[in-house]
Amino acid sequence: MTLALTDKELKDIDDYWAAANYLCVGMLYLRDNPLLRTPLQAQHIKRRLLGHWGSDPGQNFVWVHLNRLIRHRDLNVVYISGPGHGAPATLANAYLEGTYSEVYPDRSPDESGMKRFFTLFSHPAGVGSHCTPETPGSINEGGELGYSLSHAFGAAFDNPDLLVVPVIGDGEAETGPMATSWHSNKFLNPAQDGAVLPILHLNGYKIANPTILARISPEELLDLFRGYGYTPYLVEGSDPAAMHRAMAQTLDTCVDLIQQIQTRARADGPGVRPRWPMIILRTPKGWTAPKDLDGHHIEGFWRAHQVPILDVADNPRHLAVLEAWMRSYRPQELFDAQGRLIPRLRALAPVGVRRISANPHANGGLLRAPLNLPDVHAYAVPVPNPGHAYMESTYVLGQFLRDVMRGNRGRFRVFSPDENASNRLQAIYEVSKKAWMANVLPEDSDGSELSPDGHVMEMLSEHTLEGWLEGYVLTGRHGFLSTYEAFAHIIDSMVNQHAKWLAKCKTEVRWRASVPSLNILLSSTVWRQDHNGFTHQDPGFLDVITNKEAIVTRIYLPPDANCLLHVARHCLESTDYVNVIVADKQAHLQFLDIEAAARHCAKGIGIWPWASSDADAEPDVVIASAGDIVTAEALAATAILRAALPDLRIRFVNVVDLFKLQPNTEHAHGLSDRDFDSLFTRDKPVIFNFHGYPQLIHKLTYRRANEVNIHVRGYKEKGSINTPMQLAINNQVDRFNLVIDVIDRVPRLVSAGAHLKEHMKDQIIEHLRYAMEEGTDRPDVVGWTWPF
Amino acid sequence: MTLALTDKELKDIDDYWAAANYLCVGMLYLRDNPLLRTPLQAQHIKRRLLGHWGSDPGQNFVWVHLNRLIRHRDLNVVYISGPGHGAPATLANAYLEGTYSEVYPDRSPDESGMKRFFTLFSHPAGVGSHCTPETPGSINEGGELGYSLSHAFGAAFDNPDLLVVPVIGDGEAETGPMATSWHSNKFLNPAQDGAVLPILHLNGYKIANPTILARISPEELLDLFRGYGYTPYLVEGSDPAAMHRAMAQTLDTCVDLIQQIQTRARADGPGVRPRWPMIILRTPKGWTAPKDLDGHHIEGFWRAHQVPILDVADNPRHLAVLEAWMRSYRPQELFDAQGRLIPRLRALAPVGVRRISANPHANGGLLRAPLNLPDVHAYAVPVPNPGHAYMESTYVLGQFLRDVMRGNRGRFRVFSPDENASNRLQAIYEVSKKAWMANVLPEDSDGSELSPDGHVMEMLSEHTLEGWLEGYVLTGRHGFLSTYEAFAHIIDSMVNQHAKWLAKCKTEVRWRASVPSLNILLSSTVWRQDHNGFTHQDPGFLDVITNKEAIVTRIYLPPDANCLLHVARHCLESTDYVNVIVADKQAHLQFLDIEAAARHCAKGIGIWPWASSDADAEPDVVIASAGDIVTAEALAATAILRAALPDLRIRFVNVVDLFKLQPNTEHAHGLSDRDFDSLFTRDKPVIFNFHGYPQLIHKLTYRRANEVNIHVRGYKEKGSINTPMQLAINNQVDRFNLVIDVIDRVPRLVSAGAHLKEHMKDQIIEHLRYAMEEGTDRPDVVGWTWPF
Repeated sequence: MTLALTDKELKDIDDYWAAANYLCVGMLYLRDNPLLRTPLQAQHIKRRLLGHWGSDPGQNFVWVHLNRLIRHRDLNVVYISGPGHGAPATLANAYLEGTYSEVYPDRSPDESGMKRFFTLFSHPAGVGSHCTPETPGSINEGGELGYSLSHAFGAAFDNPDLLVVPVIGDGEAETGPMATSWHSNKFLNPAQDGAVLPILHLNGYKIANPTILARISPEELLDLFRGYGYTPYLVEGSDPAAMHRAMAQTLDTCVDLIQQIQTRARADGPGVRPRWPMIILRTPKGWTAPKDLDGHHIEGFWRAHQVPILDVADNPRHLAVLEAWMRSYRPQELFDAQGRLIPRLRALAPVGVRRISANPHANGGLLRAPLNLPDVHAYAVPVPNPGHAYMESTYVLGQFLRDVMRGNRGRFRVFSPDENASNRLQAIYEVSKKAWMANVLPEDSDGSELSPDGHVMEMLSEHTLEGWLEGYVLTGRHGFLSTYEAFAHIIDSMVNQHAKWLAKCKTEVRWRASVPSLNILLSSTVWRQDHNGFTHQDPGFLDVITNKEAIVTRIYLPPDANCLLHVARHCLESTDYVNVIVADKQAHLQFLDIEAAARHCAKGIGIWPWASSDADAEPDVVIASAGDIVTAEALAATAILRAALPDLRIRFVNVVDLFKLQPNTEHAHGLSDRDFDSLFTRDKPVIFNFHGYPQLIHKLTYRRANEVNIHVRGYKEKGSINTPMQLAINNQVDRFNLVIDVIDRVPRLVSAGAHLKEHMKDQIIEHLRYAMEEGTDRPDVVGWTWPF
Repeated sequence: MTLALTDKELKDIDDYWAAANYLCVGMLYLRDNPLLRTPLQAQHIKRRLLGHWGSDPGQNFVWVHLNRLIRHRDLNVVYISGPGHGAPATLANAYLEGTYSEVYPDRSPDESGMKRFFTLFSHPAGVGSHCTPETPGSINEGGELGYSLSHAFGAAFDNPDLLVVPVIGDGEAETGPMATSWHSNKFLNPAQDGAVLPILHLNGYKIANPTILARISPEELLDLFRGYGYTPYLVEGSDPAAMHRAMAQTLDTCVDLIQQIQTRARADGPGVRPRWPMIILRTPKGWTAPKDLDGHHIEGFWRAHQVPILDVADNPRHLAVLEAWMRSYRPQELFDAQGRLIPRLRALAPVGVRRISANPHANGGLLRAPLNLPDVHAYAVPVPNPGHAYMESTYVLGQFLRDVMRGNRGRFRVFSPDENASNRLQAIYEVSKKAWMANVLPEDSDGSELSPDGHVMEMLSEHTLEGWLEGYVLTGRHGFLSTYEAFAHIIDSMVNQHAKWLAKCKTEVRWRASVPSLNILLSSTVWRQDHNGFTHQDPGFLDVITNKEAIVTRIYLPPDANCLLHVARHCLESTDYVNVIVADKQAHLQFLDIEAAARHCAKGIGIWPWASSDADAEPDVVIASAGDIVTAEALAATAILRAALPDLRIRFVNVVDLFKLQPNTEHAHGLSDRDFDSLFTRDKPVIFNFHGYPQLIHKLTYRRANEVNIHVRGYKEKGSINTPMQLAINNQVDRFNLVIDVIDRVPRLVSAGAHLKEHMKDQIIEHLRYAMEEGTDRPDVVGWTWPF
């Protein structure tokens, strides 16, 4: 299939490349005279010059060659722009392909539209200099670096006819998330998945430094990518004609290889892991810019990273350099009298959905179909009486997820850093093994659960998993990530950026269709770290989430298995959210049957009458909880109080949907003040036992009338490899301390509760002593059940 | 220098290894009969079996061979245990070397001490199963994986006689931070730095999965590490004798190579980057455990990861298997009648500070010397009148840091992801270039600032930088990390873990000496993202920090350059904190001269009388600020109010030290309620203009008497590539909205302020219109100065 470029093809491609490069320079500089119909003057120049040139010509080069491939072979290509601030290239090509004008009609394919296209680039509230949700054809936010390759693999999974081409900046290549995501090739199955053709764009420089990969020997460079399991192809140079020929041939070779791999795997099964091709494209940074200016290097140096010449409005000589540079692309030959790309060049771009900028996978909501979700009743834990049975809630969830997997083959994946079984989700393996294209050994049959066509994704990299998941949902499919609660912080920044992406799409980018939510289960939680200890105790991911926009964030703390089922189903049905679910993996008390759980989760917050003793009247105290383990302790405290002080009117409130606590003016799930007050009263003491850091509750409730009386217990960084009860006591979320809290805050208990308070202190001492001597918690705590 | 092992040496080493392995199994299982003097019975077994066996024998194997090297060559070795839950190996060796008993005398080197040593392992509030601060000889917390190699390089920088040996788990090797930290070798100078000898421990499995690197071909594996720039040496097998011989020889070879590299570099200069050796140690997981049990693999499989046989207390047959396994190490031959390691084996360990477990670099505070810090007055910005001059505060800081660097050659480094110049710290290059051992090109002389002996560390990996910095300070040296504010979230989890380490050391691990603080400057902040936009707007790192223990966390928001100087000096003098400083890099208004700044920073919070109009009496309103940009806006609002409403009594309060807002019962820096009330009143409206997410202020102040009247403005996720004023207006931290806030909250302004309020709304509309049309902010905002 490899065809050498004809001279005509070469000229066409070079002209198209020149048009794209011209547009990039225009975006950086011009607010008028977009086609240089008249001599360039200072008044044509933008007031502020902001933007990035460095990687644009290299990316334009890749794009025009991909266009050729697509036309020749009718390929279905998603392009991912890794080099953060290289948006001008993507924008230029989207504009040349017409997509940009379709999406933003004010930037029409003519001279006036081009003027506006230039003007709005890096203009306030306009178009950013890195790829954003507003960029047609993009699913990779270019602001934070490191995720283009994991996004690419996420897009390719289960899309067998897709070719995803991530261009990876050599700056981005220094990030940790990128460095390990090269290993994604051990998880891609050529029979069922699409292909990823990574192009490392080695242009040599970051903002002000050379890049590492550009400054190692060619042997090391090739060894590195061979070691990552690829067959690297080097396209290197600066002479356009030679580079065009080399790139065309190399891309043909790579696609031939990819198609051979796929054809064989689809005929004979996935077999051994192929060595997929990748390309190292070594070009000058800022290729085709002036070589130097005033004795400083521009082309091929870091000074080409942003706007290469800054003072053109004030410096006529520099203005002339700019004009000569821009005219070197011969705009008058490339655009017609109306300012449209000439027909000869327009014919080089693919048409319709084959245009990279219009590929529907890059607006994945268009391809989204709702999951087939089983009825949660089939997995219900029988709960004849609240608080009597113990169950691993996530084990139950695993059975539900297993059947979600069964009913949605090829469009639902479960992700975890080697922790699905540890998190008790192992039932999913009955339906799908772990994706694995690396070597297999005979002993793997002893429970390793590996398969090339597995849809459970396990790698010890939270970054790669999160990147795969983002790529998977942004292309319209569904996923579920489970991770140790403390280590969710590893992906704080990735989730932040995804939330920002979603928020932009929901508020401003109307042409993007809704995508499935990003679902994250936090398990192995802070309160059960008997042998992991202090390092594994950090429930602060929730705090990070609450800083993101309310329209895209949801946090659920189901108290038991049946609530977890309802919450999980709801999250899997939803779109455009970051859903965070907190549920521990150990056996915990179960409170609500599946019907009661449905009602409770639908409300998101509610009084548990069976636990309360206020007889629907005004209580003396509200005991509230959010989280599975802290709910059990809060209930145990309630039981102690009701037994010892039968006159005390206790209201028990449980929170599943954390944002219920915020005012409805702040979050769509928030309670009105009236509803909040009806639960928490306006003046009675509230003892709130919270799963996470206590101040988060204050952060959410600070405007409420009764805030001053809300006393929150939660994790306060007091931990070690403690028994559960020790840890609870150290952080005062245990039943005994909660009883003391109530006594201390209900005025009429000052004397009536004095004896009970002493008894609680004795219990605390006794429990700590027992745990230290026996190495476990007392059986009366471990097996405690609700006594009423 | 390579000497083959003699038969006696082989037997000695193998016996020592057996002793260490025996101790590891003992830790997992025994609470009595530690030396198996009597037949093993169920009552000798711990009640709960918790811990990790998988990587222990491999790490013991490395350790005993390092002991041989140290004794033969008098090496100074720091060992870093990367495979998270492999603490038993480190503990066993610290115990065998006597260090453990020196530090924890209750675990004496005899039978009763050994019994207690075993019992406390994985016992509540006892000894964890991964390396923790309590572990002698360790500077790497094993709870979260991925940082052992960057820690190792951090320890080796500027320690020319040190050999740091990180053992890297093949699970850990899948993490992103680890995958890129292999490139640290491009920053290590053999002339001035020590050496790092990485040992990849390829034991094949994580918790329940094979590892990627164990399941690629040997060619790929070697290519990968060649590509990373190392010379890999493979030591592979399971036969102990053969493995001992191979390991001894390989280590000798590697150390010879290291010493040749160092000798040459120290004689002739660093020259070209050497290809440092690294070792791939391929052993069975759980090596020397029973091969299988009940048809399931143990040795060499993931089932050896934790406690390999769990039901020994209830299953006599399994108890017998355990006993046979333990007796296979022949404890009666290795320990004497008192339970001490026999003299023949004791002689194998180095003595004194040459013991790995007693290396002072691993308790780096012992080696810490305070920095020579210049007087900040030399860098003072003249501020004859508050609020009249503009200055880039971080540029001034750069001059101070330059001279810190000058005065502390070899024990102070500055770290940044390619952003020191972008963050305006470029003055440091006058004294130290960027460390760079990769290739250099002629054009680098055009401002790239590279040098092998540079002490400025720049790589586009926040993870690697943070890991280097942690390794550097934990070994007693000083550092300063600057990073883009939004992307500090990338290292949330690392900083969390470091804060936990420090908190443990301060509260429980008394034998650890104080180490220099971890200093982080957040620059390129949320409020100046004209061309980066929404993705670069996230001030939430502060929220993460406030969840950590008060005893180790400090947050400073200096409003101007002189305050920044004082804050930076204070942070560099301090120990055992995570200090976070927020200061933008753009030109901002300057408020305080260096003397006034000294007083203000010493208090951390205070009234600015020159900005206030309350004449020291009770104000009508308090306008407060924390942060440079928001302080200028708050002052501008104050100026508008004072001009328009001269009777209004305004108190202006500025906060430098954010924890002043917390009660003194929560944080050592916290104000008493009395002092807080004296600043913020008990009942007057407070308009608080905050740099970060507004709820953080509520989180810190929720217990204060006047909390209900504190109205906080801050970033609320409303952003794009806005002009500064647009962004301020969108988030309502701008002067106009603040004036409206005051009018809305001071009762007597309902009518008196009505006209001003209308005027403010007009101003907002006018400023937004101007920015959209002109692409910049109005000159009267850009150049605004305090008018009084």
